Amino acid sequence: MTKNEIKQKIAETVDKARVEKPLAPSITNTVTVNLVANAQLAVGGSAAMIYMPDEAKAIAAIGGAMYINMGTILPIYAETLPETAKVLHDLNKPWVVDPVGFGMGAIRMDCLMKFKEYKPSIIRGNASEVIGLARLWGLVAADDSAGPRGVDSVDTVQSAREAAVAIARHTGGAVAVSGQVDLVTDGKQVAYAYGGSHFMEKITGAGCSLGGVCAVYAAVAEPFIAALSATLMYNLAGSVAERLAKGPASFQMDFIDNMYMATGSMVSTAKFEVEEA
Amino acid sequence: MTKNEIKQKIAETVDKARVEKPLAPSITNTVTVNLVANAQLAVGGSAAMIYMPDEAKAIAAIGGAMYINMGTILPIYAETLPETAKVLHDLNKPWVVDPVGFGMGAIRMDCLMKFKEYKPSIIRGNASEVIGLARLWGLVAADDSAGPRGVDSVDTVQSAREAAVAIARHTGGAVAVSGQVDLVTDGKQVAYAYGGSHFMEKITGAGCSLGGVCAVYAAVAEPFIAALSATLMYNLAGSVAERLAKGPASFQMDFIDNMYMATGSMVSTAKFEVEEA
Amino acid sequence: MTKNEIKQKIAETVDKARVEKPLAPSITNTVTVNLVANAQLAVGGSAAMIYMPDEAKAIAAIGGAMYINMGTILPIYAETLPETAKVLHDLNKPWVVDPVGFGMGAIRMDCLMKFKEYKPSIIRGNASEVIGLARLWGLVAADDSAGPRGVDSVDTVQSAREAAVAIARHTGGAVAVSGQVDLVTDGKQVAYAYGGSHFMEKITGAGCSLGGVCAVYAAVAEPFIAALSATLMYNLAGSVAERLAKGPASFQMDFIDNMYMATGSMVSTAKFEVEEA
Repeated sequence: MTKNEIKQKIAETVDKARVEKPLAPSITNTVTVNLVANAQLAVGGSAAMIYMPDEAKAIAAIGGAMYINMGTILPIYAETLPETAKVLHDLNKPWVVDPVGFGMGAIRMDCLMKFKEYKPSIIRGNASEVIGLARLWGLVAADDSAGPRGVDSVDTVQSAREAAVAIARHTGGAVAVSGQVDLVTDGKQVAYAYGGSHFMEKITGAGCSLGGVCAVYAAVAEPFIAALSATLMYNLAGSVAERLAKGPASFQMDFIDNMYMATGSMVSTAKFEVEEA
Repeated sequence: MTKNEIKQKIAETVDKARVEKPLAPSITNTVTVNLVANAQLAVGGSAAMIYMPDEAKAIAAIGGAMYINMGTILPIYAETLPETAKVLHDLNKPWVVDPVGFGMGAIRMDCLMKFKEYKPSIIRGNASEVIGLARLWGLVAADDSAGPRGVDSVDTVQSAREAAVAIARHTGGAVAVSGQVDLVTDGKQVAYAYGGSHFMEKITGAGCSLGGVCAVYAAVAEPFIAALSATLMYNLAGSVAERLAKGPASFQMDFIDNMYMATGSMVSTAKFEVEEA
Repeated sequence: MTKNEIKQKIAETVDKARVEKPLAPSITNTVTVNLVANAQLAVGGSAAMIYMPDEAKAIAAIGGAMYINMGTILPIYAETLPETAKVLHDLNKPWVVDPVGFGMGAIRMDCLMKFKEYKPSIIRGNASEVIGLARLWGLVAADDSAGPRGVDSVDTVQSAREAAVAIARHTGGAVAVSGQVDLVTDGKQVAYAYGGSHFMEKITGAGCSLGGVCAVYAAVAEPFIAALSATLMYNLAGSVAERLAKGPASFQMDFIDNMYMATGSMVSTAKFEVEEA
């Protein structure tokens, strides 16, 4: 796709979500669950959060796309997550995974390993999480130059490019790596997106809620366009909110308000570049 | 009661809650639990949230009224909810149920079935949930003209009137159906309330937190007056907040602030009509 | 320490946290978890919340200090809390306990009893919780004149002085008692701090999030200085926010914004007095 074709699709995706109001249910952490739901509502989607396996499988079948965020694992997740992932895969439903907390805890790592087979449509994470996942799945060498697994600052977004491309080629979907500059790839093209705000690191859940918005858009667009639309929406609303905010709490309020007001045309003009993978 | 008698009781209820600060503990979903607590505090109540059966039964006994919201079911709810409902019933304590997620999940549906015997003082839900519950309890025909069970937009508030009246007559309490126009009934009278804001659908937890405020008021007033007072409080504060808000997040802030500032006299002047059931 | 030495250390602590950005992981209740994380971020710390025993023990080892808040107990806490407390004790890591809900529930009370041996670095609670804990641990007489265990209004901060000093001498750490006037002691000195806002009681989580900020500061300072720094930060930001706020929701926003903007020098000038224990 040319950059102009991508921009056109982004504008359509943002507007289509407001018209169709797709249900994008989530299994997500208790810390930021409220922000995830409010962000999904702000862009026009419909939210529903669950923990139980029977509910998750039922709602996976009726949702337009699903969001699984690996934060605050509860014991029941050992059943819920693999069973839901299988249903999503078997029904060919789009789904988004945020591998937050990568490297920690048996349930989280077992589930992430199982997800390799079920191929999430979009992986949304920071550089270290994406590199860690590509290694866990054996898609890149465990000792390559991308640096050790750990917190985000250990690895730059650029250092996760190889891992992101490898994951996207395995899943046939897209990978979004968040950082100072954001990277989104479908394994064929790599987009770099600019903007956002330093306040994003000062509120909890900027990344988590971006994953939730990716799921809303994945219900109405292909994974690469969905992930890039969500990323540009965040960069646009974050830039505007930063100019209005006195601190992180007023930033969060202005950020949600500005997502609510942003049109497809506005989002598609947020700065990004695209190149071959 | 005449409309003027009802208005007088509403004014007294709103003011009494600010003086008595009744404890209205909740078992409620993780998505909107913070908003439920803050709404309860904003109207003068005291909040406490729990999950464990022993804690729930202990706090049910000391609370003025309890709130059970059926969102984000956890495994322990299979024990906690029926045991707590029995305690509330045996102690003759007022309690409020929000049957959110009606139709989905074995634990939710089993608990809601058991609640028929324990007779919640107030049911607060959307039209489809109230119709669904009345059918589950065998109070209205399963194939009546009210339309299929599902999301709120499937059924109008008016279409839930028969179900709401039937539930209220069974429980001896009240039912509040939220929608564009809100319906509150005790099985003898039906009140219709007007106002609120389109932003209510753009924040998560407007309905959940209304249930929490119903519980605060149920600690100091009969169910019908409690449910109507909470509904009018939401309509008043929502209307004011909509005029101040730039988007859903600033709306939520202004909404809570305005609930905090509203007096009984102000709330009792919010628009409603009443007729025989 | 003289008052001037204490002020100097407070200023250093507040500034050091912004530079070092210490990770202060939490096991905390679902009601206020979002506010805890955002408060920790606002003062410069890094937040991570978990429930599973294996994750808790892993993150306890890499965090600078840990926060355990006893609200909304889940079944898994029966394993997670004692195991984590033992790890923290064995590794000599600072940790903070908020005994919210004291007196209710078998898991909570069993865990709090076990914590006596593991000696939390900081206990942060209201007067009744601190008195209750000192009695549970056998550090003060069960029938002394401090009044019955119960909600905060039953006991004044001053009435918890003996209990707070006794706990601090047992743990070798600090105790912070929140109220109209706040008390912080390490068993040798007792500080009284002034300020804050009446809105603190009208938002859920003022106390919970104060515990989270105590943990951030405990990663960079001794317990007494950490607890007093957090208390003064809350009193300063609360006083400023009250002047800006229209109600509890705008207060919460301004409160977080002002914590984000406060420097060590500003916090150290918040009013307090200190005397021998």
